[in-house]
Amino acid sequence: MIETETAPSRPASITQPDVRERILDCLERQFRTHGYQRVTVADIARELGMSPANVYRFFDSKASLREALAARLTAQVEESCRAVAMRPGKPSERLRAMITEWHRMTIERYVSAENMSEVLQAAMRENSRVIDAHTARQCALFAQLMAEGNACGEFRVKDPVLASRILLYTLSVFVDPSDAARLFKDDEMVQVSSMCDFILGSLRSGGV
Amino acid sequence: MIETETAPSRPASITQPDVRERILDCLERQFRTHGYQRVTVADIARELGMSPANVYRFFDSKASLREALAARLTAQVEESCRAVAMRPGKPSERLRAMITEWHRMTIERYVSAENMSEVLQAAMRENSRVIDAHTARQCALFAQLMAEGNACGEFRVKDPVLASRILLYTLSVFVDPSDAARLFKDDEMVQVSSMCDFILGSLRSGGV
Repeated sequence: MIETETAPSRPASITQPDVRERILDCLERQFRTHGYQRVTVADIARELGMSPANVYRFFDSKASLREALAARLTAQVEESCRAVAMRPGKPSERLRAMITEWHRMTIERYVSAENMSEVLQAAMRENSRVIDAHTARQCALFAQLMAEGNACGEFRVKDPVLASRILLYTLSVFVDPSDAARLFKDDEMVQVSSMCDFILGSLRSGGV
Repeated sequence: MIETETAPSRPASITQPDVRERILDCLERQFRTHGYQRVTVADIARELGMSPANVYRFFDSKASLREALAARLTAQVEESCRAVAMRPGKPSERLRAMITEWHRMTIERYVSAENMSEVLQAAMRENSRVIDAHTARQCALFAQLMAEGNACGEFRVKDPVLASRILLYTLSVFVDPSDAARLFKDDEMVQVSSMCDFILGSLRSGGV
């Protein structure tokens, strides 16, 4: 969609990504206010003071607009988790910090925010490719921390790839926006810190 | 609803429970065939060759009929799990067998059977009191096995009540009928045996 050749006089490399981000910001804001199904390209164009055709210059369909937002939201989660996981410290502490951060972002961004749980559920259904790639990258980060923990003698994980997938199942209620809403309905809710204790216990003993 | 006083000549203690069970059998069969919302008391009465009024002698509403079926279905799962958990053997082996049996029944009865996943989801929403009591009893059985494992030196669980609730979260995709359907959509599905390895690893090391 980059149009540097047809509009060579504009500094496309600077402004076009900005417009793209502004469109996604606007989409996210509108989703939060109106819900996933009710937002149209016309609404976004109106709020940004541009024509729908201009929105379509950046995103060729409503579906690709939604997919780009799903990709951006998941990339932000990954970035925060990676920053926390890569700090100095023992792999067990960094794994705990990464899980806690992932959970915190899930609650803050999707569960506590009105409409966003519905937005995410719809987005997950429609953009399963984006979501699968996201969870695969989060799994890879888990596996990397497990390998580091094995190397320094903290963990005895036999199969980090399998153990990473198990962590996803184990954490689903903490990090999957569509599952996390259940936590608030549960009177005897388990804290994420207890789940981390449980997980680290298994990684230390070489359960898998 | 027992009517021994108004009909003293009938051997009520023998036949009335039978009729009750036959009504529930019929309800379950009809749910499996037609789905949760489409079954009426009139359908059940017709299939059993009795009047709707007679069905209402045993269950005072469609809601209480559904609740009784939910209670029966969950009781059957608990009975099978308890039988497996109480066999001779090490607590770790019995815990593994119990989890495996619970998962097996979930798949066989709800996930593989057409309509039953929908039936169970609706039943869980409508009969949350029955379902909560069921999961509390399953948790109590987990905690009992953990205490036995602690006593014989297999486990080092600090808080069996907390650990039992963690197991519920961990196993949700294996034993919760509304979650279990996701397993079949997952190309890289984790086997229940691997999840058991992971859980037992944590119980042995005293993660929680």
